[in-house]
Amino acid sequence: MSDHDLIREKIKQATAIMDDHDVDLWLTFVRETSAAPDPALEMIFDGDVTWQSAFFIARNGQHTAIVGHFDAENVRALDVYATVVGYHEGIGRSLLDALAQYNPQTIAINYSEEDVAADGLSHGMFRRLSRYLVDTPWAGRLISAAPLIAALRGRKTPTEIARVRRAIATTEQIFDEIEAYVRPGMTQREIAAFVHERIDGLGLGYAWPKPFDPIVTCGPESATGHAAPGDVALQRGHTLHIDLGIKEDGYCSDLQRMWYVLEEGETTAPPDVQRAFDVVLGAIRAGEVALRPGASGWQVDEVAREFIVDNGYPEYMHAFGHLLGRSAHDGATVLGPRWERYQGICDLAIEPTNIFTLELHVVVPDRGVMSLEEDVLVTDNGVEYLSAPQTALRYIR
Amino acid sequence: MSDHDLIREKIKQATAIMDDHDVDLWLTFVRETSAAPDPALEMIFDGDVTWQSAFFIARNGQHTAIVGHFDAENVRALDVYATVVGYHEGIGRSLLDALAQYNPQTIAINYSEEDVAADGLSHGMFRRLSRYLVDTPWAGRLISAAPLIAALRGRKTPTEIARVRRAIATTEQIFDEIEAYVRPGMTQREIAAFVHERIDGLGLGYAWPKPFDPIVTCGPESATGHAAPGDVALQRGHTLHIDLGIKEDGYCSDLQRMWYVLEEGETTAPPDVQRAFDVVLGAIRAGEVALRPGASGWQVDEVAREFIVDNGYPEYMHAFGHLLGRSAHDGATVLGPRWERYQGICDLAIEPTNIFTLELHVVVPDRGVMSLEEDVLVTDNGVEYLSAPQTALRYIR
Repeated sequence: MSDHDLIREKIKQATAIMDDHDVDLWLTFVRETSAAPDPALEMIFDGDVTWQSAFFIARNGQHTAIVGHFDAENVRALDVYATVVGYHEGIGRSLLDALAQYNPQTIAINYSEEDVAADGLSHGMFRRLSRYLVDTPWAGRLISAAPLIAALRGRKTPTEIARVRRAIATTEQIFDEIEAYVRPGMTQREIAAFVHERIDGLGLGYAWPKPFDPIVTCGPESATGHAAPGDVALQRGHTLHIDLGIKEDGYCSDLQRMWYVLEEGETTAPPDVQRAFDVVLGAIRAGEVALRPGASGWQVDEVAREFIVDNGYPEYMHAFGHLLGRSAHDGATVLGPRWERYQGICDLAIEPTNIFTLELHVVVPDRGVMSLEEDVLVTDNGVEYLSAPQTALRYIR
Repeated sequence: MSDHDLIREKIKQATAIMDDHDVDLWLTFVRETSAAPDPALEMIFDGDVTWQSAFFIARNGQHTAIVGHFDAENVRALDVYATVVGYHEGIGRSLLDALAQYNPQTIAINYSEEDVAADGLSHGMFRRLSRYLVDTPWAGRLISAAPLIAALRGRKTPTEIARVRRAIATTEQIFDEIEAYVRPGMTQREIAAFVHERIDGLGLGYAWPKPFDPIVTCGPESATGHAAPGDVALQRGHTLHIDLGIKEDGYCSDLQRMWYVLEEGETTAPPDVQRAFDVVLGAIRAGEVALRPGASGWQVDEVAREFIVDNGYPEYMHAFGHLLGRSAHDGATVLGPRWERYQGICDLAIEPTNIFTLELHVVVPDRGVMSLEEDVLVTDNGVEYLSAPQTALRYIR
């Protein structure tokens, strides 16, 4: 399926969701999107626009785009917007004309305190829109598009699932190549450089910014968290942890894999390392069982978090999982604890066709971090693994 | 100079500008900046942050950053923020604590109706900030950081000027390579592919999204405007126009160059083509003379626009120039007409150390577009060309 077909698929899905939410019009109001992207735009348009631009998705299926005259041809080429206005001097009049034609009772715009993927409207653009709407009936009809965007982004179409599946398969192949390449003594930087060479060579993109993708953690001295790979060398008796996400055909993977570097004479990991692996794997499995349509994100996190704590490790200071799709952090529902930071997104209900990461870590003193991450699809009654889950430690010899 | 040194240079510049504008505190409030970038952030931090994050630049030089605990190490490495707080569950308390310590009379936040580069605060984040500030004295002290950001972004430091100069020199070299490569019969797509190969091979970035960089216009059949290179082949008797911008060491070029494809037996361009070139060049020179510190953007545009119209061509439907720097469209001041679309940014005053593009086009019937773009630095009493200006048509044989 082409990218244009995929956008048509998503827009069709959008109008159905608008019916569910009783939204007449969904307005994406943007400018200079290469500098100031709205994450919702990529679901309804393929590319960037320069001047102030308004994309109206209408419940009745008659969509309108108002863009700078330079950009009109690209919008027409998409063949989704029944009306494409390419304006010259200013958007104001065309915007009001379109609203008058639709006469919507509700106009959903892209802001959300909780969900970054539904919060693409800047405050300045909100003020400008409000100024255009002064003394019109539309001013009082603005609502947040967050529930609409969350559903649209979260519910993956078969095409989207296939694309994520392919990105994951490619990532797993790169993990195999990493394993064949890595030797004790290599630094984080060398390992990351090898991965970059593979990704760039295959013409793939990165699921998050390249300096931090992959995250490579060698033994106990490496920084944990969102640090760029440094000069710590991989040593025997330590763990090697890699967090890698690629972007292929517009869709992302996000996986973590674990190795133990065998000491001379060792054939398996020592008990402290093996136990940590078993507990992390056990927590992922416990969370996986809790991941069902209708459950709230925090309930899934709680099961995994309790498993870790019950097994004597400190709880992880992040969420157990997030949505995955066009972005590594694909907006809305988070499998996270009820902390201030996850307010409003950890209590959303899990839905079939959501794709989630499942991830957590513990630290093994003097050995390094132990961290796994899998990617799973929510089905009508459970989950399907899109990644081949790591169920045993891998070894570097 | 390293990127970290450059950020320190800009932050020092920021505190001086805050004095000029009587701003006590400048707050950049962001989250998930790889998905939702704030264009102001790159001037004060090198990288991305994940959870809600607050960067306080204080007039007194005691800067504070509050970020998710994962990101704290990267912020500390920058060595700019005297206080770096890595929070765990939520940012609210640390945010209010920092405000109480500063007790600012004015807090500038990043929104602007006119300037996209000063409008990085999303509407949802504005609402969240407002919620944190309910029942505090700070709620009533929020102002727009737009004048501060415009000055900071617009006034280039010597390091920044040197970087733009280098990006331009690299671009001019690529134009020479293009000229040596191009032959009649090649398509827009082939020419763009050659340029991509050079840019990627040199490890450079793109000043705007790659599918539209370069813009390649072959003869009268090519789409003009922001269209991706297509299948139109270059023909004798037609013009070839290329709009190319690269990003090198974080700074951009943005240049347009013109060729005429000689017919068999021709040694110079026919009069209609030559005259169009002369008028476009004349308009750029007329505008260049008007470009002086203290002039308003629209006054410069008006001179170039009138020159074109006085010479019998229709006016161009865009601005005569824009700022150039970290982005191709580097925010704030635009050398544009007083249209609704340029409201509030075409009447700003030009300042020394601003770097502007100067660009415009006419169409030569049956021949193609004729369009030039130069990059110039505003000095205390005029302009200095950073590009070697194209003063004669170039030829493809």
